Amino acid sequence: MARPLLVSFISGSIGPWRIERLDAVRGESLQPAERLEVLEGSESDLTGSFVWSLRGFTSNSRYTTSSETEALNAKQRGLNCRRATRAALIPIRKIAAWWDLSQNERRDIFEEQSKHIRIGLEYPPAITRRLHHCRDLGEPFDFLTWFEYAPEHADAFDELVHRLRETREWQYVDREVDIRLIRE
Amino acid sequence: MARPLLVSFISGSIGPWRIERLDAVRGESLQPAERLEVLEGSESDLTGSFVWSLRGFTSNSRYTTSSETEALNAKQRGLNCRRATRAALIPIRKIAAWWDLSQNERRDIFEEQSKHIRIGLEYPPAITRRLHHCRDLGEPFDFLTWFEYAPEHADAFDELVHRLRETREWQYVDREVDIRLIRE
Repeated sequence: MARPLLVSFISGSIGPWRIERLDAVRGESLQPAERLEVLEGSESDLTGSFVWSLRGFTSNSRYTTSSETEALNAKQRGLNCRRATRAALIPIRKIAAWWDLSQNERRDIFEEQSKHIRIGLEYPPAITRRLHHCRDLGEPFDFLTWFEYAPEHADAFDELVHRLRETREWQYVDREVDIRLIRE
Repeated sequence: MARPLLVSFISGSIGPWRIERLDAVRGESLQPAERLEVLEGSESDLTGSFVWSLRGFTSNSRYTTSSETEALNAKQRGLNCRRATRAALIPIRKIAAWWDLSQNERRDIFEEQSKHIRIGLEYPPAITRRLHHCRDLGEPFDFLTWFEYAPEHADAFDELVHRLRETREWQYVDREVDIRLIRE
């Protein structure tokens, strides 16, 4: 596994991704904006104008067992596939009661009850995903998940997020914004 | 559990803690310095002169089960007890092979094989501890553990770190510095 990578998602008038939709699913929304830029690596220079900026880091896995990791690695592909001209950025925040749980309690809700990993395994390689953690940075969200897929898999992506939102794990989510993007 | 707290450990010529000893246990050491300041909260202003500065965040627990959390909460006390005039700051880094392990494999080495939690439970409330994560910040270490204790518990503290260093978990540690401090 690579070292953690800091990634900034900066909305404004520049960037290769056009923001097609920006919907509050739960809680407060984010300001509408035209375009999104994704910057990888050390602290980005935010002296230019932007509408909002969110950052998070990729990290080691927190819940997957060795056999789940193996299954994921066998199916997942990298980002930036040429045919994947659609993307989604889904920032979520969980309530304090989630973070107060112990590791085994969180794992139980996350997988044994909600099947987060099992559901997530049904969609790659058509849908690729990268998770960024941000609660520990004092950001307004806890996680930023980034997905990329080809236009013909947009329905499958809608199904994936719908299934996850129905789970017991999602009862701990008190803020979620769903941002859909087109690479131009 | 409180929100994550960013903490900076800044060595130089000021601060309430006098650095009594600074020893490399494994790998590269840190520059010697006279004093240490511990700053809590948002990014500290580092325009003044300092010798080295390390930062990390407190976070949710990663390995403890609910019963272990309960046992720890029953014994742990807060920092800044007036009689605890001794402290230790122990920055460690683990090798990539540790971070490549899955959650269940890390838990197995951490507790089932190394009894990290069980050993750690024998020492509070005499020795209090706060863990700071920093790998995800791109820092030179993965963890900064801070301990406080009264002078009469210095031997117990030496025993605690000695026992942990003998464990299988510690075979994954490739850099460790042991910094002992006196509050003046």
